[in-house]
Amino acid sequence: MNELGGYDMEDLVIGMSESLVKTVNEQDIVMFANASGDHNPLHLDEEYARGTRFGGRVAHGMLSASVISAALAGRLPGPGTVYVSQTLNFRRPVMLGETIRATVEIRALDLARQRVLMSTRCEVNGKVVVDGEAVVGTTSRMARSRARPEQASDLAG
Amino acid sequence: MNELGGYDMEDLVIGMSESLVKTVNEQDIVMFANASGDHNPLHLDEEYARGTRFGGRVAHGMLSASVISAALAGRLPGPGTVYVSQTLNFRRPVMLGETIRATVEIRALDLARQRVLMSTRCEVNGKVVVDGEAVVGTTSRMARSRARPEQASDLAG
Repeated sequence: MNELGGYDMEDLVIGMSESLVKTVNEQDIVMFANASGDHNPLHLDEEYARGTRFGGRVAHGMLSASVISAALAGRLPGPGTVYVSQTLNFRRPVMLGETIRATVEIRALDLARQRVLMSTRCEVNGKVVVDGEAVVGTTSRMARSRARPEQASDLAG
Repeated sequence: MNELGGYDMEDLVIGMSESLVKTVNEQDIVMFANASGDHNPLHLDEEYARGTRFGGRVAHGMLSASVISAALAGRLPGPGTVYVSQTLNFRRPVMLGETIRATVEIRALDLARQRVLMSTRCEVNGKVVVDGEAVVGTTSRMARSRARPEQASDLAG
């Protein structure tokens, strides 16, 4: 554990996994639209969305992706994580009111470069809605002992 | 143009490009944190963030990514776009108050599968902060003439 409550590189083992659950409510979609600038009526206008093949409002795809980011930053590796890259395959729409379970799992560790390869997926009712892979950096006790203390304070997402 | 104001597949040409500009303010970061569940103090706590190597609050990486999504959904191909996949390489942090320019450009067209390969990047002050590629689907006049009308109402992001 680092001083932020996240895992050190040395604590990580291939196969470790964590999940974060988030129900997408009306306010989340409105906030996400305002934060991102994506005001597509399919996300915001129930009457319009009901007339589409989705039959109702759909969460922004990047909102699901953001729950992955929250799982990496908040759970595994947790605070102190640095986002390097993320791939996202959008498999199914997520409807307003549905509950996203984002699961992240360690697939490979590169101790020399302080990098972690994670599989990342979001599911709704057991069906994959978004999947892909993330590469993240993380702090290590070794790295911190050589670095200025504040260099442990990196971010995920 | 489709009836939502987005481009039809047949309107698209390799090399077409659009940008969307968004200044990341305090409210955006708070809204994004609430919508995603990512409450990392590096994004939210100025005092804490000032003590890190970033010297102040940093936008969530996925917030920059969301501006790409907004550029696809709002500009090119525009309304009617369907997100298929996105890759994201996080190159530099984006500080609170900085202005992100998201640029999307058509790289390849697959008319048979109704898919468009786009390069996607976010810049701050001319420096790349996030880059990658998106694959999106889009409606077409041909496809719509065969489909139920409401099938034109897909989404981006």
